[in-house]
Amino acid sequence: MPGNAPVIELYDTTLRDGTQAEGFVLTPEDKLKVARQLDRLGVDYIEGGWPGSNPRDQEFFERAGELQLENAVLVAFGSTHHAKRTPDNDPNLAALLAAPAPVCALVGKSWSKHVTAQLGIELERNLEIIAASVAYMKEAGRRVFFDAEHFFDGLARDEDYALAVLKAAAEAGAEALVLCDTNGGSLPSWISQGVGKVAAALPGITLGIHCHNDGDLATANTLAAVEAGARQVQGTTGGMGERCGNADLCAIAPTLQLKMGYTCLSEDQLRRLTDTARFIREQANQPPTSFSPYVGTSAFSHKGGLHISAVEKDPALYEHVSPELVGNNRRYLLSDLAGRAALLKKLADWGFDMAPDDHRIKQMLDELKERENEGYAYEAAEASLELLVNRRLGGRPSHFFDLMGFRVADYKESEAKPPSSEATVRVKVEGVEEHTAAMGDGPVNALDRAIRKALSRFYPALSAMTLVDYKVRVLAGSAGTEARVRVLVESSDGESRWGTVGVSFDVLEASWQALGDSIRYKLFKTLQGG
Amino acid sequence: MPGNAPVIELYDTTLRDGTQAEGFVLTPEDKLKVARQLDRLGVDYIEGGWPGSNPRDQEFFERAGELQLENAVLVAFGSTHHAKRTPDNDPNLAALLAAPAPVCALVGKSWSKHVTAQLGIELERNLEIIAASVAYMKEAGRRVFFDAEHFFDGLARDEDYALAVLKAAAEAGAEALVLCDTNGGSLPSWISQGVGKVAAALPGITLGIHCHNDGDLATANTLAAVEAGARQVQGTTGGMGERCGNADLCAIAPTLQLKMGYTCLSEDQLRRLTDTARFIREQANQPPTSFSPYVGTSAFSHKGGLHISAVEKDPALYEHVSPELVGNNRRYLLSDLAGRAALLKKLADWGFDMAPDDHRIKQMLDELKERENEGYAYEAAEASLELLVNRRLGGRPSHFFDLMGFRVADYKESEAKPPSSEATVRVKVEGVEEHTAAMGDGPVNALDRAIRKALSRFYPALSAMTLVDYKVRVLAGSAGTEARVRVLVESSDGESRWGTVGVSFDVLEASWQALGDSIRYKLFKTLQGG
Repeated sequence: MPGNAPVIELYDTTLRDGTQAEGFVLTPEDKLKVARQLDRLGVDYIEGGWPGSNPRDQEFFERAGELQLENAVLVAFGSTHHAKRTPDNDPNLAALLAAPAPVCALVGKSWSKHVTAQLGIELERNLEIIAASVAYMKEAGRRVFFDAEHFFDGLARDEDYALAVLKAAAEAGAEALVLCDTNGGSLPSWISQGVGKVAAALPGITLGIHCHNDGDLATANTLAAVEAGARQVQGTTGGMGERCGNADLCAIAPTLQLKMGYTCLSEDQLRRLTDTARFIREQANQPPTSFSPYVGTSAFSHKGGLHISAVEKDPALYEHVSPELVGNNRRYLLSDLAGRAALLKKLADWGFDMAPDDHRIKQMLDELKERENEGYAYEAAEASLELLVNRRLGGRPSHFFDLMGFRVADYKESEAKPPSSEATVRVKVEGVEEHTAAMGDGPVNALDRAIRKALSRFYPALSAMTLVDYKVRVLAGSAGTEARVRVLVESSDGESRWGTVGVSFDVLEASWQALGDSIRYKLFKTLQGG
Repeated sequence: MPGNAPVIELYDTTLRDGTQAEGFVLTPEDKLKVARQLDRLGVDYIEGGWPGSNPRDQEFFERAGELQLENAVLVAFGSTHHAKRTPDNDPNLAALLAAPAPVCALVGKSWSKHVTAQLGIELERNLEIIAASVAYMKEAGRRVFFDAEHFFDGLARDEDYALAVLKAAAEAGAEALVLCDTNGGSLPSWISQGVGKVAAALPGITLGIHCHNDGDLATANTLAAVEAGARQVQGTTGGMGERCGNADLCAIAPTLQLKMGYTCLSEDQLRRLTDTARFIREQANQPPTSFSPYVGTSAFSHKGGLHISAVEKDPALYEHVSPELVGNNRRYLLSDLAGRAALLKKLADWGFDMAPDDHRIKQMLDELKERENEGYAYEAAEASLELLVNRRLGGRPSHFFDLMGFRVADYKESEAKPPSSEATVRVKVEGVEEHTAAMGDGPVNALDRAIRKALSRFYPALSAMTLVDYKVRVLAGSAGTEARVRVLVESSDGESRWGTVGVSFDVLEASWQALGDSIRYKLFKTLQGG
């Protein structure tokens, strides 16, 4: 099939339309991290945001030069110029030009009623605005994709006008026309007919499809559009988006590729799908979705003994595709055997040369399963996992010190004054006990400072290490303030970054664990290098 | 349209297939409550469970006589008789007969490979078993629906056999043939063709469709089946189910009725959809889904100032259907992308009758913008916003007490021992200072307990209030353990839920703010009611 399979371009708008989802918030730093992962996944276009519309997107584009994308092209999104301005004095278009993005996505109205009722301008004027905006950006050296907002609603109510809008954009130099189901309520047959009409009216230009999920049909609508001739698929990696979300590339790409004979990613890239989806949610401090097709934690889970033995005999009897193809795992909810292959892979990576039937593998899997039940998550904390494995399988020294105890006091004297935090810690290194104290900005920071102060006397290498991210998540299943929490810490020494984890009902104890692992990992790696 | 609209029967399997979802657990008592709500909603059939397969389903059917259903018919689910038994000595069929359900759903294999590889019997024997089981239940006075498991996979691989299975069930007296996409991976065109083939091969019998969502296509597949002639739609109310879930009746019924010209519920019943979906999740102790089509809390939410003022003018420009039709609400989200229109709408909802050009609106917007820059997020903390607005615009009393100060101590004595947490707080109520202390499971919990202890003496109403969710988010932009954190708290008094927020570099101070607001809001609402 590869070679002959028609190619579909993936256009990811997680960083722009995705952040319209209620509760899905990414900082500029998060957005840069997500962009790097989307690039690694292999999407063709990354829509980074709307420069000039808000400070977050502004900062993202200011720093986008850091990205050095290998697979994807960066896109800046914006609207056509304001009706009372011309392209060359429109602040929106100026912000687009200032962004270091080779492609700009220009959105314009294609439903006549929106033009008259919302913009309050003549229909003809809207066509002029679109043509002038597209031409201006083209002349400035940008590739232009035209997003036809509310296209399918417009087509159903005023077909001639909706097509005239597309024609204006195409004639002004737009390279792709993106047909948007902005309100998300279309049925697959409507989309199919609509795309067919455009393909007949404007042959030769690339058509894109941008669906929302208000009728739970965004995936089906996108697939219908591709069958009708669309070659660019827009969506978010995980389906986040305004209201009920955008089309989910994680549901669409595997179906296009594994069932419909199209190509959008290499086989290796497709295997990164699950990790990428989870990474993005992690950045927004949200747990992985359970029930998402292909990439959810429950997507390939099996219940019941008979069922499981049948799956073991022939998974194809019970699974629509093999989970490995999208980088997910089969899970057995009663007797969890998952993760074995992944663990063997990791052990090899870390230099442990073990037979697959070594009894310690089973012990290790049992321990990991138990710890994951307690709330430890090693996906974002591989350094903690490597330390644990090293400890159990008798590798190189990795413990270095004992964290003996701490005491943290946090006091607020009045409503007006900020609180003060003080931590004392006791650690033991090579038989020597160190007992020290530090103040901090908040109790976690006080604890962090005290631990480093106590250890830096013994390990000067720690001065090169900084903490770059700190995340707290309340674990589900337990309600309220007595719930268990998981702390994820990310550290850096300028050359590499590593993640560690701690879990406790006490946020300070969880931090203590994660900070301890973080420091141990630095020492472990430093000794390996030396 | 009504009168001529073809009728589609809704068959709800929330109580059977829905409970296969990971983490979705219903007690027999819960199941009875859910059945009553489904009956009120107006579904045609309620599949109550698999009697004899587990104690919960057993107890549900023992007590099902209490139900007195008005709209729906109760269905008991079970498999055809065991290959080594006859119908009259099969415990599974005996359990079905013992259940007070007029209809039984009998499931049998229709994919030949499953018959030989999993059951390990001859293909012909499977046909005998199906025919004998259906006939036996019919003779015992039951209506029988035959569930053809793995039908679409079987049809694709061994068409003759899959159709022979259906024929055996139909000839033995099955009233409906339910075509199942058990592995959930079919595409709409496959479903469409499959249903068409069955309708041609077995004209006159009712066809049902039972889809799973492994390809994110359960809704589209179900709609495709209806268009191809299926008249019974199976699914769960909310889409819960094994792996990625079952077809979601909440997404399907409104589309069938509002967009495709079929009838399944009365207009009044359709308006109960949102409440029913939320009730069911509430029974399983799960929050309402945010992003579910039609019934999610975000399904009709709008962000952005321009957008909101346009929605106010003509909602049809921005909504695929009117939320009232399915009993949902339009919501305006306040966010850093939004503005004046959203705030004005909120103020009106809260009873502040202000002119749009009142200078206090501008002040309020400036303050909100500044607070959002600091990290406060009011989307999930409307109670904090209502308190703030009320304070600034001089509404009813809402302050009630001063939080004067706290001191929290958290100490860990050794690696082996869990830490201990103690909090002391000082609060002032009507000039009286209360100074008290509490231990807790972690420092946040200790603080929470101490605050409640100090205030409950003055406000006994607080005993009815519980904390149902606690979330911590480290705000990016500031790295490491000295970063600012946002705490979101969700509280409940059994009748309603409300969210509050606190922000600080100190997780305890942020919690202190959010807990204080949470308690104030409860008192504020209690006084309004009284």
